[in-house]
Amino acid sequence: MTGRLSHVDDRGQARMVDVGDKEPMRRRAVAEGFFVARAETIEAVMQGRLPKGEALAVARVAGIMAAKRCDALIPLCHSLPLDAVHVEFERLDNGIRIEATASITARTGVEMEALAAVSVAALTLYDMTKAIDKDLRIEGIRLLEKTKSAAV
Amino acid sequence: MTGRLSHVDDRGQARMVDVGDKEPMRRRAVAEGFFVARAETIEAVMQGRLPKGEALAVARVAGIMAAKRCDALIPLCHSLPLDAVHVEFERLDNGIRIEATASITARTGVEMEALAAVSVAALTLYDMTKAIDKDLRIEGIRLLEKTKSAAV
Amino acid sequence: MTGRLSHVDDRGQARMVDVGDKEPMRRRAVAEGFFVARAETIEAVMQGRLPKGEALAVARVAGIMAAKRCDALIPLCHSLPLDAVHVEFERLDNGIRIEATASITARTGVEMEALAAVSVAALTLYDMTKAIDKDLRIEGIRLLEKTKSAAV
Amino acid sequence: MTGRLSHVDDRGQARMVDVGDKEPMRRRAVAEGFFVARAETIEAVMQGRLPKGEALAVARVAGIMAAKRCDALIPLCHSLPLDAVHVEFERLDNGIRIEATASITARTGVEMEALAAVSVAALTLYDMTKAIDKDLRIEGIRLLEKTKSAAV
Amino acid sequence: MTGRLSHVDDRGQARMVDVGDKEPMRRRAVAEGFFVARAETIEAVMQGRLPKGEALAVARVAGIMAAKRCDALIPLCHSLPLDAVHVEFERLDNGIRIEATASITARTGVEMEALAAVSVAALTLYDMTKAIDKDLRIEGIRLLEKTKSAAV
Amino acid sequence: MTGRLSHVDDRGQARMVDVGDKEPMRRRAVAEGFFVARAETIEAVMQGRLPKGEALAVARVAGIMAAKRCDALIPLCHSLPLDAVHVEFERLDNGIRIEATASITARTGVEMEALAAVSVAALTLYDMTKAIDKDLRIEGIRLLEKTKSAAV
Repeated sequence: MTGRLSHVDDRGQARMVDVGDKEPMRRRAVAEGFFVARAETIEAVMQGRLPKGEALAVARVAGIMAAKRCDALIPLCHSLPLDAVHVEFERLDNGIRIEATASITARTGVEMEALAAVSVAALTLYDMTKAIDKDLRIEGIRLLEKTKSAAV
Repeated sequence: MTGRLSHVDDRGQARMVDVGDKEPMRRRAVAEGFFVARAETIEAVMQGRLPKGEALAVARVAGIMAAKRCDALIPLCHSLPLDAVHVEFERLDNGIRIEATASITARTGVEMEALAAVSVAALTLYDMTKAIDKDLRIEGIRLLEKTKSAAV
Repeated sequence: MTGRLSHVDDRGQARMVDVGDKEPMRRRAVAEGFFVARAETIEAVMQGRLPKGEALAVARVAGIMAAKRCDALIPLCHSLPLDAVHVEFERLDNGIRIEATASITARTGVEMEALAAVSVAALTLYDMTKAIDKDLRIEGIRLLEKTKSAAV
Repeated sequence: MTGRLSHVDDRGQARMVDVGDKEPMRRRAVAEGFFVARAETIEAVMQGRLPKGEALAVARVAGIMAAKRCDALIPLCHSLPLDAVHVEFERLDNGIRIEATASITARTGVEMEALAAVSVAALTLYDMTKAIDKDLRIEGIRLLEKTKSAAV
Repeated sequence: MTGRLSHVDDRGQARMVDVGDKEPMRRRAVAEGFFVARAETIEAVMQGRLPKGEALAVARVAGIMAAKRCDALIPLCHSLPLDAVHVEFERLDNGIRIEATASITARTGVEMEALAAVSVAALTLYDMTKAIDKDLRIEGIRLLEKTKSAAV
Repeated sequence: MTGRLSHVDDRGQARMVDVGDKEPMRRRAVAEGFFVARAETIEAVMQGRLPKGEALAVARVAGIMAAKRCDALIPLCHSLPLDAVHVEFERLDNGIRIEATASITARTGVEMEALAAVSVAALTLYDMTKAIDKDLRIEGIRLLEKTKSAAV
């Protein structure tokens, strides 16, 4: 571990890392993050006066779509045809824990896809609750797990 | 403050909030967030062996572009032709503070644009450093300030 | 009514219609369409074993996002910052009626935005039900209403 | 056939279907739809006073591009690098029959891509003729054929 | 004229130029460029064995769509809802002259939109002819004219 | 070489070339182009009063992102998950030479991706310097090299 950034070449210029020599493997990444809000806000999102889940469904779709277009968001990220993306929400006392799982059969991993899904799902919850809560925050976005195995 | 979500109608269905009755004003929002990494990682990003700023420039561009296409990321967000976006980085001991400012002359505010810029700039720093640091995190994404004044 | 296409100039070449001489008005368009499927399929979508509305919420979000990016779908369509979009579903015996309303304050109307919302919401319902029903169809996509009034 | 939606998991949440266990096959789908208009409108589109085909070429390009970006339109649809897309038009008395064929070598099929091509080609014809005909409709969008065979 | 780049602030960081203080004006820009190819290639494009204009129509649509999404292509470019875009082709002995005109009512000009339309129309001609001509080039992309006047 | 356009079928209609029968190979393309400006402008871009490379980094990112979304720019171009893209700049007396290299493991080549990267990097340099130089031009965009070899 030399402290050399992988996305910067030896002249210090930004680049996409070349993955052409890597073998296609089945890869999976899981990321999490936290949407932090007041208890009443979480109540409104999770089950308030509305059909259970409509607000969460919107955030889930936003997260899935962000994972699919991660290469358009993050400049040096590869375009990757994902096998699947899942986004799940867990109710906490003063927030919602978001977990996203992305999987693919490809030459490079999908941790950025999982992290993008978490981030954009959180931003979407923020957007839908900002009118009723002025102390929203997004915290603790990180990778939980990254695995690979032989492709089918 | 009734705890009713603005993006959900009285039948509980997701919707864009109608802004047609609001007057065009000059609006501005500032958001911040933190990219947390080991000191050596921050060193590599900030000034290591590379031309000062290439990695930061990539993250800055990613943040600016995310603000401009915020409506494509966040499902119920309005399409807004921004007057300007700025993304700045401040070096901390074990991280980088990201601050984004978005401004517009329109019928609705730009806090989601500023927050999206911060989030995507942070994800881009994550992407460029993930090969040299396995303990990266993104923390404390929130709105700092939101103002409006009469349009020119 | 001369039968001359508005999007083709006098040399027969495709063009965007110039709207620069038109005044900004508040405009609104309503469109409808029908997703046709077997009764069991509709049952599964509307309220089956799942939290009421998750499948509909996905289709609604897809329709709203299509309206917002209508200019990227339809080559000669203007880019329009919509004030609002709504997508609603009505259960029928053998299908779902989709109604979309788009509104804007601009120099040109939003009927294509409303029609795109209906079309893409219908395609999304098709995508989610195609594994359980082989006789799906989309029918009757048309404009119901188009109005304009002075801008605020 | 249990009536369980493939894009909703056992807790009723929207998801992308995981295709990682499926084998890459060569797949092809054909879809059709109808753009319905008055005879004079069809005349104007097909061969009127303009170079034959410019209006149809615009609709064809729109359909092809929609098939290529189908994953950005339909939330739970996979990103698929298509081998080919064709869009063809057949003149009818009071309309135009649109047929789209999409093909791919991948782990999942391309019926949504073919259907999206038909839908967006029809919307584009609608956009170009809406100034001369107030009774336009889009009808009968459905899948005609879906096949798969071993990949090269 | 100080030689200071407008898109770089006084600390040398990339930024979008703030246009919030500028008045909305009606603005127009015209750009040109040249697609250079062998005479037989130009013949094939312009009128060969094909319906006149289908290849040109594809390039025209590509140019128009690039102008509309110029802000997604050029990082520091503003998002601008164009009033109109036109792309025209003129046959030369060994090439095709491309001219694009973009117009808008906005706080900033549209020269990048006109230049993007020319560039992408030229790339599209390149794509369609590269199989029959190995000496293609794109030359002389530049702004011809830029005007502004009071808005309606 | 018959002068028949590959992207036009035998009825003269635009199409994507079907690549399903081609074998996946490792493919690489190199393209170049020239951004032409006054010496003072080049000085400002290359090393002026600003951190070395911020303006170039913005143009580099724009070029890389354009290569990744080439299929959305050029209508009949395939969607291709690139293995890598590099964009380099060489200072000339009155301009900057741009060279882009794209590589992939796929059924079709990546020359359009390399050419799109060069074109959009050049447009981005144009955008950032247009306020200080009224005689900018983009010249000599062409393919330098195209190779293929067996895939890993």
